[in-house]
Amino acid sequence: MQENSTDQPTPRRLKLTLQYDGTEFQGWQFQPNGPSVQQTLEEALEKLLGQRLRVHSAGRTDSGVHALAMPVHFDVDHPIPTANLPVALAKFLPVSISVLSAEDVAPDFHARHDAILRWYRYQIHLSPLRLPLGPRAWHVYRPLDLGAMEQGLALARGEHDFSGFRSSQCQARRTRLKIEQARLTRDGELIALDFKCRSFLQHMVRFLVGSVVAMGHGQIDRARLLRILEHGDRPELILCAPPQGLCLMGVAYNDAARQGMLAADPTPPSF
Amino acid sequence: MQENSTDQPTPRRLKLTLQYDGTEFQGWQFQPNGPSVQQTLEEALEKLLGQRLRVHSAGRTDSGVHALAMPVHFDVDHPIPTANLPVALAKFLPVSISVLSAEDVAPDFHARHDAILRWYRYQIHLSPLRLPLGPRAWHVYRPLDLGAMEQGLALARGEHDFSGFRSSQCQARRTRLKIEQARLTRDGELIALDFKCRSFLQHMVRFLVGSVVAMGHGQIDRARLLRILEHGDRPELILCAPPQGLCLMGVAYNDAARQGMLAADPTPPSF
Repeated sequence: MQENSTDQPTPRRLKLTLQYDGTEFQGWQFQPNGPSVQQTLEEALEKLLGQRLRVHSAGRTDSGVHALAMPVHFDVDHPIPTANLPVALAKFLPVSISVLSAEDVAPDFHARHDAILRWYRYQIHLSPLRLPLGPRAWHVYRPLDLGAMEQGLALARGEHDFSGFRSSQCQARRTRLKIEQARLTRDGELIALDFKCRSFLQHMVRFLVGSVVAMGHGQIDRARLLRILEHGDRPELILCAPPQGLCLMGVAYNDAARQGMLAADPTPPSF
Repeated sequence: MQENSTDQPTPRRLKLTLQYDGTEFQGWQFQPNGPSVQQTLEEALEKLLGQRLRVHSAGRTDSGVHALAMPVHFDVDHPIPTANLPVALAKFLPVSISVLSAEDVAPDFHARHDAILRWYRYQIHLSPLRLPLGPRAWHVYRPLDLGAMEQGLALARGEHDFSGFRSSQCQARRTRLKIEQARLTRDGELIALDFKCRSFLQHMVRFLVGSVVAMGHGQIDRARLLRILEHGDRPELILCAPPQGLCLMGVAYNDAARQGMLAADPTPPSF
């Protein structure tokens, strides 16, 4: 096949922003026991471009966790116009994944390493009854003391060793992190817990939510939460909050985006 | 087992209001090829009360169609307090079905026959890109002329023979119905089409939505829609709009509820 020299493809790095409903996926990363978002996206790219590419994401969401805006990057030497990718990929993706935007980025941009702020939201539906058509959330039927939960969030803010709030499989070397924002907003029966931090440990948000809910139920007090933060000894009764209430809301790569994310004040429900 | 005479169960008729996400069900009614909402609810009642009961609903939603508030009734001679049913049944129901309320009704109340107004809403997400975390909707990516759609809804209002807007399986004898309200509201990319009528034919809302969308795409004009309304000859190009965008919003049984439903003005998204 003759190639037109003006169409000669040049290797380039692209950034996509994905939205996905994590319900039916085994998380972001390849898994032997079911489809992952990464595998599904790489297969869609292969069908569209005829090339097997490796995609790198800003974070590895767990099985069942959602993303409102997950940045990923990959290198490609295909002439497809960048702006065509979102609609072109839609033909090869399930309804649970969508590419919201595509842009060319510098060849050294890295979706994970260059992130300076990540925003996770956790939604709780507080009610004796479930609402099947309500927002994605952890259904908590026992009343919660929101004041106690606010106290827990206040303690979690700032710099701590979060060893007590991670999965036993977490391989991160640095466990000392600074939570820049941790706050609770309520809209009727819906409670949103927002956490903003440069990076998170595996299951960290879910264990923080489990701890704050344990405070809301009077199962642990401030002193007990402080002991987890200072000594990492998490009591058995603290649940890893279930995945369906958790969503990666966005990732910032420069100071303007970081400031915008810290100032954001969305009204629940968001997902 | 000795029974306390004051606890002697008396046969009584109960009305429940259900909310369900229809995605995983073969509609309301028993089906050989998968679980129905009716079967799932009757099995939950059997587990809770130890009796196999027959439940009657206000309507038979199709496979994949949702209900924000579906009234049903049944007779039972069990001493469980009516008010306990919603929470007690939650233990035996999947997360996709919830009982919102329970009440005692007159022994001749009938959820289907006594309904004087039903409200269905159809949601369309109008955008080149899908939003996996957005509301339940029919994703329409080609632009729609909302003015033309409004014209179609205006024609559908009032009394007509709706033979042209029903499934070939529909067994209703009366096809002459009076649509009391048919309107469009828009909130950004989300369009809600509301239909209020005493009763609907099978697939009627979905064929009406398919027709109005065909007008919005310039595929049919007012004259062609009038011909369907007057002569029942629906052209092939009119789609039965997909089920995931449709939801039964509520059913009225008395004039006050009917007036409230006609005056309701909810902001989308509703489900």
